[in-house]
Amino acid sequence: MKISAFTVEDVPMIQKGDDLAKIVADRACLENDDIVVFASTIVSKAEGRRFLLDAIEPTAEARELALLNKEDPKFIQYVLDNSTRVLLKHPLLVQTIYGNVCINAGIDRSNTESGYILLLPEDSDRSAREIRDRLKELTGKTVAVVITDTNGRSFREGQIGVAVGCAGIAAVHDRRGDVDLFGHELKITIQGITDEVASCANMIMGEANEGTPIAIIRGYRYVKDDRGIKVCYRSDETDLVKQALYEKLDREASSVHRENSKKIKSEG
Amino acid sequence: MKISAFTVEDVPMIQKGDDLAKIVADRACLENDDIVVFASTIVSKAEGRRFLLDAIEPTAEARELALLNKEDPKFIQYVLDNSTRVLLKHPLLVQTIYGNVCINAGIDRSNTESGYILLLPEDSDRSAREIRDRLKELTGKTVAVVITDTNGRSFREGQIGVAVGCAGIAAVHDRRGDVDLFGHELKITIQGITDEVASCANMIMGEANEGTPIAIIRGYRYVKDDRGIKVCYRSDETDLVKQALYEKLDREASSVHRENSKKIKSEG
Repeated sequence: MKISAFTVEDVPMIQKGDDLAKIVADRACLENDDIVVFASTIVSKAEGRRFLLDAIEPTAEARELALLNKEDPKFIQYVLDNSTRVLLKHPLLVQTIYGNVCINAGIDRSNTESGYILLLPEDSDRSAREIRDRLKELTGKTVAVVITDTNGRSFREGQIGVAVGCAGIAAVHDRRGDVDLFGHELKITIQGITDEVASCANMIMGEANEGTPIAIIRGYRYVKDDRGIKVCYRSDETDLVKQALYEKLDREASSVHRENSKKIKSEG
Repeated sequence: MKISAFTVEDVPMIQKGDDLAKIVADRACLENDDIVVFASTIVSKAEGRRFLLDAIEPTAEARELALLNKEDPKFIQYVLDNSTRVLLKHPLLVQTIYGNVCINAGIDRSNTESGYILLLPEDSDRSAREIRDRLKELTGKTVAVVITDTNGRSFREGQIGVAVGCAGIAAVHDRRGDVDLFGHELKITIQGITDEVASCANMIMGEANEGTPIAIIRGYRYVKDDRGIKVCYRSDETDLVKQALYEKLDREASSVHRENSKKIKSEG
């Protein structure tokens, strides 16, 4: 198999309301089954997900976490507002309202003007479907769309590209039942295809001042479906790492509670 | 930027002692700065890391973990012998003697004959350097080598390709100090390059019966060094997820201990 991956050149600074599909269609000659990969930052910008940092009033919890993380309490408040639960206080790892787990709820302060923050798209799977449909309309080509962010990982240094939304491509490829070279059934064989696609695209997209937030992967044979990235997110019940982190936080909280009780007693 | 990634075709079944560099040199026309990616399974096979499952006697701990994981106790004993510490009992997530954290110490039972297991290469960074040097000798080309495995992840379903060894390419690209499009300094910017390379290669290598365990990535500009993959492995001290998992296991162990004490008392 041979694939190629290339960036779309001369992508302008994206503004609210920009038609990302048109920007691609004007600059690249798409083929059927291409995978068109967008950095979530530009999808967010096009969708007007930029907010003024000063537009929010931090709570006591945000102030405490800000101190711990040497961050602006207003930034941390945005993180909390975009999270359903904190998994680690420092770094601030959260379960986001979007379904994924990541540092700072995926909120970006780089690649945007000072004083502003950029939230993840409201529903990246929906965004991916919309862009995919619009690309079909403009070019007649049936493509897949993947929206990416970069995440750190447990156990390993370095951030890598991951998918936060997708359309027209199965996020995971369930190969249980397939056989290996010796005819044995494969044991653990759910492949995280869109995350691999995101990593491949992130290699060439860069994160700094390259300004190449769109990449196209061509020649890859993939399973097609429209279930989105959410099938890839583990539930609390099946995620033992999450459970360990929740328990650790609960334990620390009750230990603080005991410490405080002791203090009150000794002061009383 | 444009890169291409393609598999090396007609790779034979690898046997102990096979010259992997020659297998590549005979089948592909390498260019300077290519990244040649090998599935760890074939590196292991060439290095004679295949062992007879029956050659080991399981301990009580292995039997207990085998029951929990519905696994062969002998297989589990191999996992324990290749680990320095257990992080989760089921699935059996371990800190390996090779430095990485993964399920079952990366021991493979698929893609090898029945009754055998395949350990990870003893030192995948060294293996990568040796293959890289031999490729230079055979072809005159200066390339990078990455050795890959597939791993599951916290929080997300699906396995993806990760690097377990590398030579001639920096495992992480430290971009702290670089600026974004608006001239702000990037905040979190250590990119896990070789893991992205591994994911990209894994997209096309496949895990089942494709028999394409070698891929070449061409056209990618990367930072070169020979520090290997180990710079990418977090230490126990800096890894909060590891700490939470260790604590959880310790707590469960002491809770079992308390239960047993209770039983002894009530029986006494």
